[in-house]
Amino acid sequence: MRPLLRAPAGERLDLGAFDPASTPGGPAGKAEGIAATAQLAAPLAALQERLYAASTAGDRRRVLLVLQGMDTSGKGGTVKHVVGLFNPAGCRIRSFKAPTPEEHAHPFLWRIRKALPVPGEIGIFDRSHYEDVLIARVRELVSRSQLNRRYAQINRFEQSLADDGVTLVKVFLHISHEEQRERLLERLDNPDKHWKFNTGDIDERALWPEYRHAYELALQRCSIDAAPWYVVPADRKWYRNWAITKLLLEHLEELDPRYPEAAFDVEESRARLLQT
Amino acid sequence: MRPLLRAPAGERLDLGAFDPASTPGGPAGKAEGIAATAQLAAPLAALQERLYAASTAGDRRRVLLVLQGMDTSGKGGTVKHVVGLFNPAGCRIRSFKAPTPEEHAHPFLWRIRKALPVPGEIGIFDRSHYEDVLIARVRELVSRSQLNRRYAQINRFEQSLADDGVTLVKVFLHISHEEQRERLLERLDNPDKHWKFNTGDIDERALWPEYRHAYELALQRCSIDAAPWYVVPADRKWYRNWAITKLLLEHLEELDPRYPEAAFDVEESRARLLQT
Repeated sequence: MRPLLRAPAGERLDLGAFDPASTPGGPAGKAEGIAATAQLAAPLAALQERLYAASTAGDRRRVLLVLQGMDTSGKGGTVKHVVGLFNPAGCRIRSFKAPTPEEHAHPFLWRIRKALPVPGEIGIFDRSHYEDVLIARVRELVSRSQLNRRYAQINRFEQSLADDGVTLVKVFLHISHEEQRERLLERLDNPDKHWKFNTGDIDERALWPEYRHAYELALQRCSIDAAPWYVVPADRKWYRNWAITKLLLEHLEELDPRYPEAAFDVEESRARLLQT
Repeated sequence: MRPLLRAPAGERLDLGAFDPASTPGGPAGKAEGIAATAQLAAPLAALQERLYAASTAGDRRRVLLVLQGMDTSGKGGTVKHVVGLFNPAGCRIRSFKAPTPEEHAHPFLWRIRKALPVPGEIGIFDRSHYEDVLIARVRELVSRSQLNRRYAQINRFEQSLADDGVTLVKVFLHISHEEQRERLLERLDNPDKHWKFNTGDIDERALWPEYRHAYELALQRCSIDAAPWYVVPADRKWYRNWAITKLLLEHLEELDPRYPEAAFDVEESRARLLQT
């Protein structure tokens, strides 16, 4: 999956070349997709346990899944799906909203650093430091030169994370303009979903081309070898879930974490225990 | 379930009167228990969504599940089970280990306050401030007069949480001495579980009567009306999961959170959206 979904680094990126309704490398349809995803759950959970176990013996490795995408692209649904595959006690989930005054007073990476996974954990970010080059660009919250510095800062930051044992899996959930309309309408049509709706979402939607361009630039300028971006077509939720599960599995298989050897005398402990 | 499992407040508590292998009020057996628990999942998830939704309109209410119990009593397994019932993005999970030097330098409730759920969330504590009257008592980490002050501090703390909208569900996972031996042996017999084993667990086990007494005192002295303790027999995992699911459901049903009314003009938003 990785080569198939990986955003081309360095080159000019055109999101128009990726069909949000496509299912690259995926199962044939919805039913097959859901079944295939379910089959990935057990190996994924086993790898997570080994990652966590290894950290108790000093292995510093951990995973950080970064989810970005337009409103209704399915970031929340993906978090729910992904955590459902893992032992949640080993997951560190963080959803980033508009910065609080305290967060705003600090450099933009400050709140990100505080939310990072520790060794053995799977971190999951619903939005991230990329908002600081996305909405910040579209809404002109900072100057162009500041924006340019931020791309470089992000690359240095992510490189240092990778050097310290963080496997970054950065996913752009790619939905179409039409699909967003459908999903927003669903929220309006169901009174139980009104709380999820914000009239500001329509204002942001009007800036769709600007956001798209900002995403193209972010994916292009912040795809280093140690932390590439993946473009996951997300109009079909079953494909989105399958593709992200598969991506995580591939990364964890490559990490291949191992249960640590016992640092104590097993037979002696068994004998002591049987006396109690 | 609540009256059935509730620890008698004020009275002298004898944990010997509770059979860890019993299934008070529960389904007839394992298969029935698992099926019954599965049936509680959908209403529980619906209530959680409503709790979260209500918080977006200013409802400050939230839930805090506190899990305590001896080693291997199933705190970690319970966290996994409970989060699996909910949307994990609305859960705030915290596992408390031995205090770090920084935590130790602060009052014992300092690290607890930092980990509390915010409005709309379900907080889940794997161990808690009760360690500061449990291991602290057994290992004589503080003086008797300090211990006595702590019970009172905990009661005031929990009362103030309740006054601010926190529904506390404090659960003591009650396992037998024999069941703990079996579970520790399982860890020794499986090399993939050696990382979960600590030779110190056997030292703590030798202090079983002292811990039991410390639990009896904690449950007795810190069962205020606003924050009672529940004793959940935990030798049978299926019963433990069912009972805690049921307890949470009962508390959430009593809270009866409501979806907020739309604070915007739905028809106007629909019209605007259809133009985009």
